Amino acid sequence: VTIAALIAVGSELLTPLRADTNTLWIAGRLEALGIRVIRKTIVGDEPEAIASAFCDSLACAPLVVSTGGLGPTADDRTREGAALALQRGLRRDAAVLEKLRERYRRRGIRMPAVNEQQADLIEGATLLVNPSGTAPGQWIDDEGRRIVLLPAVPHEMKVLWEREVESRLDRGAAPIIRRVLRIAGVAESRVEELVTPVYARWPGHPVTILATAGEVQLHLSAPGDEAAQLDAMEKEFREALGHRVFGRDDETLEQVVGTQLRRQGARLAVTESCTGGLIAQRITEVAGSSDYFEGGVIAYANAVKQDLLGVSEETLSRYGAVSVETARAMAAGVRRRLSTDWALSVTGIAGPGGGSAEKPVGMVCFGLAGGSEGDVAVERRLAGNRETIRRWAAAIALDLLRRRLVGAPLQE
Amino acid sequence: VTIAALIAVGSELLTPLRADTNTLWIAGRLEALGIRVIRKTIVGDEPEAIASAFCDSLACAPLVVSTGGLGPTADDRTREGAALALQRGLRRDAAVLEKLRERYRRRGIRMPAVNEQQADLIEGATLLVNPSGTAPGQWIDDEGRRIVLLPAVPHEMKVLWEREVESRLDRGAAPIIRRVLRIAGVAESRVEELVTPVYARWPGHPVTILATAGEVQLHLSAPGDEAAQLDAMEKEFREALGHRVFGRDDETLEQVVGTQLRRQGARLAVTESCTGGLIAQRITEVAGSSDYFEGGVIAYANAVKQDLLGVSEETLSRYGAVSVETARAMAAGVRRRLSTDWALSVTGIAGPGGGSAEKPVGMVCFGLAGGSEGDVAVERRLAGNRETIRRWAAAIALDLLRRRLVGAPLQE
Repeated sequence: VTIAALIAVGSELLTPLRADTNTLWIAGRLEALGIRVIRKTIVGDEPEAIASAFCDSLACAPLVVSTGGLGPTADDRTREGAALALQRGLRRDAAVLEKLRERYRRRGIRMPAVNEQQADLIEGATLLVNPSGTAPGQWIDDEGRRIVLLPAVPHEMKVLWEREVESRLDRGAAPIIRRVLRIAGVAESRVEELVTPVYARWPGHPVTILATAGEVQLHLSAPGDEAAQLDAMEKEFREALGHRVFGRDDETLEQVVGTQLRRQGARLAVTESCTGGLIAQRITEVAGSSDYFEGGVIAYANAVKQDLLGVSEETLSRYGAVSVETARAMAAGVRRRLSTDWALSVTGIAGPGGGSAEKPVGMVCFGLAGGSEGDVAVERRLAGNRETIRRWAAAIALDLLRRRLVGAPLQE
Repeated sequence: VTIAALIAVGSELLTPLRADTNTLWIAGRLEALGIRVIRKTIVGDEPEAIASAFCDSLACAPLVVSTGGLGPTADDRTREGAALALQRGLRRDAAVLEKLRERYRRRGIRMPAVNEQQADLIEGATLLVNPSGTAPGQWIDDEGRRIVLLPAVPHEMKVLWEREVESRLDRGAAPIIRRVLRIAGVAESRVEELVTPVYARWPGHPVTILATAGEVQLHLSAPGDEAAQLDAMEKEFREALGHRVFGRDDETLEQVVGTQLRRQGARLAVTESCTGGLIAQRITEVAGSSDYFEGGVIAYANAVKQDLLGVSEETLSRYGAVSVETARAMAAGVRRRLSTDWALSVTGIAGPGGGSAEKPVGMVCFGLAGGSEGDVAVERRLAGNRETIRRWAAAIALDLLRRRLVGAPLQE
């Protein structure tokens, strides 16, 4: 097997409302095994439509992987559609049914009758046990062809893939290897400018730049037998980007910051105005963040900035709530109040209202307290809508701390 | 024509990096014409793969619309693939070729030879003039079937659609109208159970259930001339779901809570342990939330629960940080500290570590302080990974406040 066809099942994926993204993740995992996706098909919840998608996909590739339609509701019909395409029957598996019931019992709830269909197995299928949800996957070997049914809930799909699917798949000829360099708080056009001279030195090695709010990713790729080349390529791009690169591959900015804090045995507090909890939320997404994260204050109203953080009435009235002076006082205040080594603060105008000629929407001030180099505060002007400004602000704040923790320059 | 199949051509759409989004836009325009998309296919740049996608799509629906593969480069092969599928020839159109050359002359450049293939028309095709790019579209009528080829560049595709395609398409019976009912903090299977009796009364009116962490959406749809029917349908589904429905269509839970708080002239504070800022972040996503949101405390460490919220050492040591007693004291504490009308608190075990037999991962306690009915605290057991548990917890907390604000029962 070196080619595969993917199917995403779900009527919602045919509406203007929802794009399929599961197949992107699966394509990435297949790529790492040297298996190339040659077709994706998206169909609705009708068993006949699902069956015809399986027939057409099996005509294209000897490996077909589907996501979706394995849940407990009346519109979960992938089991039925795949059985139809393979001309096999469905049987209700007593052991699976008991496990489903057990799962509900443990949570003290009676299993709704509709969930029973999740125990329906295609004749000859191998059950793929789902450790984090009720929908099990299925694996069918059919005259040299392989059919894999996975649930649509992303984390369930991913866990099943990693535990049950990957080890069963043969590798293809030469996998494509990929490396991602990640940069936060720097505009895409600036990154492009910095790396353009490096591009020219690597013809035939595709490089893609992907930008999201607050983060730019550089995807480098090479054939699997050119790992040394990829290393050399990474080195050159890193040299061009310097301290701006915060991490590699799947590393998130909050993970990198967390690793540094843990290494230094230091604790962090945050206080947020315009980001309203976004920074704290990102930090606590990392399992084990309680090792270095103390907590923080959402200082949305000025009264909170005064009462909980000790920002003086004078600072607020003289410089305003959105100012480097207030940002500095907020960071120092939360650090003192929560007795931590480090503290971050953000105060700004995320819009759409609240801007003025002097302080427009997009003006955001950041404070960083702690360390031997003393407290600092910086101002940035950000573009975009409320959501974009908030996401950029959170990324810049976390990157400010990262730069200080690793001893990099704080600006640009 | 009341059903259609869409094809997106482009090898980059089969990699992990890039999702097709053109078909979402086209699905929206077709829906407004009463034409339903029943399948989408994504294929690479090989003519044989493109041809087989057209054959399979034409077997599903009498209208097939493709995007991509009409450009000037060597990997633009949709013309060839579609001609193969329709068993028609390709001929280079002299008039089109002259127009392409003219376009280049005006810009003072000689047209590269490779661009000539953009003048290749499928036998019998109608040219769709592209006012904003070099890639023209094509329209083919083939024994009652219609095939439309469009370029992939989004703004070119959209202009061509609006100027050349829409007016040529027959409308379906009636455009589809859609209504979304939104429910938070209730499991998908429970929602299914509640609405199953209603389904049966609306044959031929597709209802889709979409679940994300913490929220379930019920998508009701009907032909455009049945607006009154859709109203009646909504009414019946609402009756089955009662107070569980928090909003309609695009309304978010944080918007609904905000509207209620503003209406009552009340202010809110929050304090979060395991959700780490997620609730505050959602509340402040709403523009103008400073009208009713005061701020809050991220009480990740126990010291913060004691020092900033005044939770007693005794409560923490006797009942533990994750307990209804602590949740209640946290909510009361942040309400007192920030002098607000209402306060929400969350404390729980999001995992993967930190669980025990008595207090397993997924145990989350919620506190709600304020109002004439007195403070309350509830415990829930949630399933899933760290991210899922946190998202469920945030939704349950916000819904708890919503229920109290609208006078609905707090449980189930």
